[in-house]
Amino acid sequence: MASKLTEKACNRSFGGLQKVFEHVSAELKCSMKFGVYLPPQAEKKKCPVLYYLSGLTCTEQNVVTKGGFQRAAAKHGIVVVCPDTSPRGVNIEGEDDSYDFGSGAGFYLDATEDKWKTHYRMYSYVTKELPNVIRDNFNVTDKAGVTGHSMGGMGALVVGFRNPDLYGSISAFSPIVNPINVPWGQKAFKGYLGNDAESYLKQDPCHLVKSYSGFVAEVLIDQGLGDQFLADQLKTESFREACKGTKVTPTIRMQEGYDHSYFFISTFMEDHMDFHSRYLCS
Amino acid sequence: MASKLTEKACNRSFGGLQKVFEHVSAELKCSMKFGVYLPPQAEKKKCPVLYYLSGLTCTEQNVVTKGGFQRAAAKHGIVVVCPDTSPRGVNIEGEDDSYDFGSGAGFYLDATEDKWKTHYRMYSYVTKELPNVIRDNFNVTDKAGVTGHSMGGMGALVVGFRNPDLYGSISAFSPIVNPINVPWGQKAFKGYLGNDAESYLKQDPCHLVKSYSGFVAEVLIDQGLGDQFLADQLKTESFREACKGTKVTPTIRMQEGYDHSYFFISTFMEDHMDFHSRYLCS
Repeated sequence: MASKLTEKACNRSFGGLQKVFEHVSAELKCSMKFGVYLPPQAEKKKCPVLYYLSGLTCTEQNVVTKGGFQRAAAKHGIVVVCPDTSPRGVNIEGEDDSYDFGSGAGFYLDATEDKWKTHYRMYSYVTKELPNVIRDNFNVTDKAGVTGHSMGGMGALVVGFRNPDLYGSISAFSPIVNPINVPWGQKAFKGYLGNDAESYLKQDPCHLVKSYSGFVAEVLIDQGLGDQFLADQLKTESFREACKGTKVTPTIRMQEGYDHSYFFISTFMEDHMDFHSRYLCS
Repeated sequence: MASKLTEKACNRSFGGLQKVFEHVSAELKCSMKFGVYLPPQAEKKKCPVLYYLSGLTCTEQNVVTKGGFQRAAAKHGIVVVCPDTSPRGVNIEGEDDSYDFGSGAGFYLDATEDKWKTHYRMYSYVTKELPNVIRDNFNVTDKAGVTGHSMGGMGALVVGFRNPDLYGSISAFSPIVNPINVPWGQKAFKGYLGNDAESYLKQDPCHLVKSYSGFVAEVLIDQGLGDQFLADQLKTESFREACKGTKVTPTIRMQEGYDHSYFFISTFMEDHMDFHSRYLCS
């Protein structure tokens, strides 16, 4: 059944249109917003899609207003889709209590714990429902790439590695590469998935890359060396280790002086758009 | 007396540093914040300065996070200074009652009405105190340009035309070009300046351009044709008329489909930085 979209915002940007839509998500059983940038090329032909998955506490607004992707998206003719980071307004007790669990912190997984499993299905939302919505409503090709920041960088690596047929290019900004071994991931996985530690592995980029069978040969990662979360939560170097002996070559760029903010993301956004365009626009 | 600056934020951006400072303003008699972007070139040599004056309701944050100027500022080696739009927290009765008068709406003038004249001195703040602060604290040359948006576009034209020795390049996004003839300007001028209509003329770009004696020969203005304020408040074409017979040639670009938002500003920001660089970096 086609999801009905309500346009909440439409602003011309770099010759294209930056829009925000609201729809009722069947997976999440609530009303959700997402951003979609339609480059000028989309008026005349089908364009490929890049999904951008945001980090903890974000809505679709953060990257839409501060990510600075529209310029490069217009250059290449790429549609950019920016979902929210969790179900919203679903009235689960405690969902708003912490910044790293519950609302704003869906971790791009399908919860299995009773309390959360009805609504917290961001994995299925991002990999199935939303791509169908995009295909049904916009002028897009079947080519898609995925990127994201922090929790969303983890999300990009996870959905990318688990769905080789869906995403032909993968990159990330400051991703949580090894969530099973850091506090953010451990808290989220225990909360959403309970005590079944085996199930955590399906959310862990360092684990998933080992069995990746798709044709993505290079993953681009930018990470600020001044990022306050680098040592305890992100542990970027673990991903370099994990890729050894796999089909994936990580291009990890440790950026001197950069932090975890959108000032960092916007600085390197064009490089990521250029990277994805090599697949998406070829 | 040198104004003591407190650094409130520092983020690396496009190889430079986007900072926010707080200081006690002698003109405004309150604590003020401003943004300053230091391009990478400023580490090794003095750089010219572009002042960006924001519009109604803004603080320094709007353009710092959404204006997208850092990329082009780094390309050219331009320091970008972004003041707030009014005194803050000065406890004048009614100052927070409307979006277009009082806090967030200083209109870049020096008030003469008793109620406002002690604090609302944004003209002197922007043209005297702040440039001194910048000169005393940062690695800058004497070359400066000025731009801004809406109320701040008006501000850029006003301070530019009234201070030919201070600003060698002038541009504006969606400026209020003829405030004496539109509701925003009439309300503000009556409130801040009382009934002395003669004094309003010193705040009106269309009036000021007629006596401009500086060496700026071209003023760049971008204006969205989809801007909801164009017909009633901005009246861009009045400026084209006003420039006839003067030394100033306006390059007015009416941009199809663009609105009054930062999506519009960020789209054309690079063109404005390039425009200012022809003077600032020559």
